Amino acid sequence: MEATGTTTTREIVVGVCRAAREASARMGRASAPEKNAALAAMARGLRGKTPWLREQNRKDLEAAASRGLSGAMLDRLTLSDERIEQMAAGIEEVIALPDPVGEVEKMWRRPNGLWVGRMRIPLGVIGIIYESRPNVTADAAALCVKSGNAVILRGGSEAIFSNTAIARILREAMTLAGLPADAVAVIERTDREAIDWMLQAEEYIDLIIPRGGEALIRSVAEKSRIPVIKHYKGVCHIYVDEGADVGQAVPICINAKVQRPGVCNAMETLLVHEKVAPEFLPTVSAELRKHGVELRVCPQTLSLVPWAIPAAEKDWGTEFLDLILAVRVVPSMDEAIEHIRRYGSLHTEAILTRNHARAMRFIRDVDSSLVLVNASTRFNDGFQLGLGAEIGISTTKIHAFGPMGLAELTTMKFIAFGDGQVRS
Amino acid sequence: MEATGTTTTREIVVGVCRAAREASARMGRASAPEKNAALAAMARGLRGKTPWLREQNRKDLEAAASRGLSGAMLDRLTLSDERIEQMAAGIEEVIALPDPVGEVEKMWRRPNGLWVGRMRIPLGVIGIIYESRPNVTADAAALCVKSGNAVILRGGSEAIFSNTAIARILREAMTLAGLPADAVAVIERTDREAIDWMLQAEEYIDLIIPRGGEALIRSVAEKSRIPVIKHYKGVCHIYVDEGADVGQAVPICINAKVQRPGVCNAMETLLVHEKVAPEFLPTVSAELRKHGVELRVCPQTLSLVPWAIPAAEKDWGTEFLDLILAVRVVPSMDEAIEHIRRYGSLHTEAILTRNHARAMRFIRDVDSSLVLVNASTRFNDGFQLGLGAEIGISTTKIHAFGPMGLAELTTMKFIAFGDGQVRS
Repeated sequence: MEATGTTTTREIVVGVCRAAREASARMGRASAPEKNAALAAMARGLRGKTPWLREQNRKDLEAAASRGLSGAMLDRLTLSDERIEQMAAGIEEVIALPDPVGEVEKMWRRPNGLWVGRMRIPLGVIGIIYESRPNVTADAAALCVKSGNAVILRGGSEAIFSNTAIARILREAMTLAGLPADAVAVIERTDREAIDWMLQAEEYIDLIIPRGGEALIRSVAEKSRIPVIKHYKGVCHIYVDEGADVGQAVPICINAKVQRPGVCNAMETLLVHEKVAPEFLPTVSAELRKHGVELRVCPQTLSLVPWAIPAAEKDWGTEFLDLILAVRVVPSMDEAIEHIRRYGSLHTEAILTRNHARAMRFIRDVDSSLVLVNASTRFNDGFQLGLGAEIGISTTKIHAFGPMGLAELTTMKFIAFGDGQVRS
Repeated sequence: MEATGTTTTREIVVGVCRAAREASARMGRASAPEKNAALAAMARGLRGKTPWLREQNRKDLEAAASRGLSGAMLDRLTLSDERIEQMAAGIEEVIALPDPVGEVEKMWRRPNGLWVGRMRIPLGVIGIIYESRPNVTADAAALCVKSGNAVILRGGSEAIFSNTAIARILREAMTLAGLPADAVAVIERTDREAIDWMLQAEEYIDLIIPRGGEALIRSVAEKSRIPVIKHYKGVCHIYVDEGADVGQAVPICINAKVQRPGVCNAMETLLVHEKVAPEFLPTVSAELRKHGVELRVCPQTLSLVPWAIPAAEKDWGTEFLDLILAVRVVPSMDEAIEHIRRYGSLHTEAILTRNHARAMRFIRDVDSSLVLVNASTRFNDGFQLGLGAEIGISTTKIHAFGPMGLAELTTMKFIAFGDGQVRS
């Protein structure tokens, strides 16, 4: 099979992975000034080479247009001057974040005099598998470099010229800063086989983060022999409690549904306590209607909001990503929590209430990556929570749960200082 | 295939997993007194039913003897009165540990007035796949219950009567404490197929922890669609630096090698700086010889310790688990670190030195789950580091690295308290 003399996909992928693993040792020792110098050079490089980037991007756009991609797809693929500036500015925001590597939160002393602590260290090599938006190349690389990791990027075939061009600028910046260019690696092969080889390179890659649609994430999770951090979907709920402040609840619900309906932290289902429903539902539904939101509702809601559409069973648990909202009246908070357990996606849930005990019980009993009291689900985002830039939002509980920032790209090792201790 | 009317392995496994998932919701809400009451009833049950446990254990021992298992295997399988008492005492130690669930380390206030924090929560359902020692059934269940998880236990076929008997006592204790018995579940099918179905039950199980030999762990990691925390092996190194305190270094090396050679945190390779080798190696080798340790050494060591055996390439990186030690002289600390990077297993490494700068650089540059200065590798253990009982030692960096105690059986969710905040 490999006797033809040409370089196989496997050889290319393994070569890239091995070089990234080699580079990761140097990255783990890089100081904050070194890493920040590389990031600054990246931002400068992107700004300085904007015309060339747009030229390379045009090749992707032409190929995409000739393959008849939709306008929305073409838009996601496009690198405008403004988007290139956003990439550069995004990298500069990462410079401003504190270096997580080397942090020791506390140390404790054992009875035998040994001092024990935990020190934050990089994971090593992180593989990012993503689709469409070329800005992921710069965003993900910046976070991986700042956290002392090497990164292997594998974007979609539709963005190959754009991704390769961005990566070339990032790699030059690494070299300028005296760091190994191979710590920012790109798999330039666009065949699916390249992903398969990447997912088997457990010797070289410590973590895989897929970014894209659910199909991509499921396929990566199924094939990978390397740990995968998954972000499946956001079916976010707001529960409006008995006695809630309707004047406060309405704007929160409008914000959660309509401020940006196409994102994972938008509300998809509204649960309303039956005692507040007669007051709350006519008001909120009139507001939602003004914003063009279609309501798919339970029979009790229908009796209060006659213009709504009866919900089908499949509407519960659907991530509409659109101006559509499922609405259900529940007889108790327990029923709301049970509904969330059954149909939710562990992403973001909020309770709107005046009752302290129920607020605390909802916080305790709902299992999602962010649980809020009296605030919009739209806050589940690294910047909004005060963590800085994020590389994704994990909806599974292993290693990271919720927005993944710099800290989630690291781990903690134990360290111990002794003066001759032996175990008895 | 399933038309025969008998219950298939798949049906049994899925039934157990589904029941455990159901039970996990209640476990997540269980208070510390409830969980401690269950643990206390477990300890009482084990003590009170010691004769019955030994009777059940005898069935396993007879089957094992008739299949010609080795004496060491039979010993590991045996439940003596003393070992049953140790299981009960081990559970009582878990009672004494603080409940990790609900802990909020800190909260911070966002500019819009939203209070944000992270709260510790159980993972949900943990699957333990293990071999031989029936005490794992009780040890693992106690840690999972205390951390608010449900646990699914699948021990080796050779211990099926013992494991089932222990589990029955643990489940009765759960019921006595008002907690769901299904939160401590045992897969009683001994066919390999049962493991395969378990590893595909990603809908019901959040984390798989294999405990046993490397072959078991690799096979589980390869087949699992559920995240696996791996503990491959411990190839632990001690590096004796130039100018080290020989009087302190010798007892540390003896302790690390001979105190319990069959465990993962015992030293397997000794690296010695060439400047201290002429003083240190004759002394330490004489002591090691007294303890019956066989030395497999580099040529430079051989010139100082003529009775040693020349090392083969495969001796570097071997986990001997025996009174055998590989010894190599290195020209610098950098060479020692490079040797560890090449042959180590990320388990435990120590430097013995008087030099502060080199101690700090070794701590920073060596990537293992525990890195020590001037102390024995034998301290890589949950109790020794002050963490309490452990469920294993992870040598991969995702989710947990090093001894896994109660905290590593949990994750953190974000929580936020608002008073009407919406995103602008």
